[in-house]
Amino acid sequence: MTIKLYCFGESGNAYKAALALELSGLDWAPVYVDFFNGETRGEAFRKINAQGEAPTMVDGDLTLSQSGVIQQYITDKTGKFGGTAEEKYEVLRWVLWDNHKLSSQVGMTRFLMNFLPEDKRPADVITFMQGRLKAAFTTLNAHLEGREWMVGDSITNADLSCCSYLFYPEPFGFDRADWPHIDAWLTRVSDLPGWKHPYDLMPGNPSDRA
Amino acid sequence: MTIKLYCFGESGNAYKAALALELSGLDWAPVYVDFFNGETRGEAFRKINAQGEAPTMVDGDLTLSQSGVIQQYITDKTGKFGGTAEEKYEVLRWVLWDNHKLSSQVGMTRFLMNFLPEDKRPADVITFMQGRLKAAFTTLNAHLEGREWMVGDSITNADLSCCSYLFYPEPFGFDRADWPHIDAWLTRVSDLPGWKHPYDLMPGNPSDRA
Ligand SMILES: N[C@@H](CCC(=O)N[C@@H](CS)C(=O)NCC(=O)O)C(=O)O
Ligand SMILES: N[C@@H](CCC(=O)N[C@@H](CS)C(=O)NCC(=O)O)C(=O)O
Repeated sequence: MTIKLYCFGESGNAYKAALALELSGLDWAPVYVDFFNGETRGEAFRKINAQGEAPTMVDGDLTLSQSGVIQQYITDKTGKFGGTAEEKYEVLRWVLWDNHKLSSQVGMTRFLMNFLPEDKRPADVITFMQGRLKAAFTTLNAHLEGREWMVGDSITNADLSCCSYLFYPEPFGFDRADWPHIDAWLTRVSDLPGWKHPYDLMPGNPSDRA
Repeated sequence: MTIKLYCFGESGNAYKAALALELSGLDWAPVYVDFFNGETRGEAFRKINAQGEAPTMVDGDLTLSQSGVIQQYITDKTGKFGGTAEEKYEVLRWVLWDNHKLSSQVGMTRFLMNFLPEDKRPADVITFMQGRLKAAFTTLNAHLEGREWMVGDSITNADLSCCSYLFYPEPFGFDRADWPHIDAWLTRVSDLPGWKHPYDLMPGNPSDRA
């Protein structure tokens, strides 16, 4: 049975799950969530996921949310992206770091800078967030110095989680040229056979609302 | 050998690991991290944890960080707090939700409202964050309606993660009286045999800096 992923192109969190599904070779299809018209905050969507978030995955009787959980499910099902047994804590460590310090802050900053009407963008919040983001990019760039992948010798959920928002074109205070180890690693990810850009992998992108 | 936990009393993230260690019955001892004088940002601490964060756990040769990873390690070692095999995704789902939507935002808001000098507290950022926090409390309160514990019939890492910041006395826009299901659940947690308040479990608290 085809796995369904509730998602939308602009969502870096959904991209983490979509990219893992795509690269794993599992049979999956996206279901568009109309986030920008409030679908995640509506009753119908809350029945699927009480956390009210994309991505949400449905595989037969099983419904899961949180990109890190969906990634773990894909790993359990396919044996891919989990690293070796000894690496499991290290993979989870970077997935959690990404959720707390990288994606949550990039996601919010990108939203405020690009998806709010221009006269509603809170300048003080944006400036504050960019200071915090810089600390996160510094940690990531330092970790990638001398490494090909976040953990061990091949791609894991740690990479699929941390890379996600960094492929988006909208400005949020990140320029690949400033962060050489991040830049080289993003190229390694996008060179993987089967890799797709978020706007090519999931339905919906900013030009729909232009 | 005694497990060491690098932590400080004010850290809700550290409390998640400290409370799990304490309630598990493992032999552990706190090591004070002088966060307010910059220890987590210094070279010496980065050698222990390149993410520069408390909590960090050292058990013999093994060093782990991220409260969710330390909790998983305690579960693997003791069989406690992981829920049943079928509940494992649901437990991780709430740990990730907590890291992304609850603790990261409570932690930041509480810091800005209490631990910055009064003339440096960014009013716009605080107001913005409180809107986002209200959405998180709404999701948590709704989930706890009709439930004793976050997942299944007994306490898991989902509870130990989500409850953590909510025991702190400093104001950050949360009043237990406004959220009856959260309130009743926090009482269930603090009634557990062996439960301790963060300022009784870990060294350091705001009165040291008064
Ligand atoms: N930690 C979650 C975050 C998911 C998340 O926050 N998704 C956003 C879209 S990028 C969402 O659906 N937000 C719903 C809302 O704010 O109403 C994950 O990794 O899956
Ligand atoms: N997601 C992490 C968060 C840890 C974290 O952010 N800890 C804070 C203290 S509460 C810290 O050490 N921050 C270091 C800094 O900002 O320099 C966890 O759950 O362990």
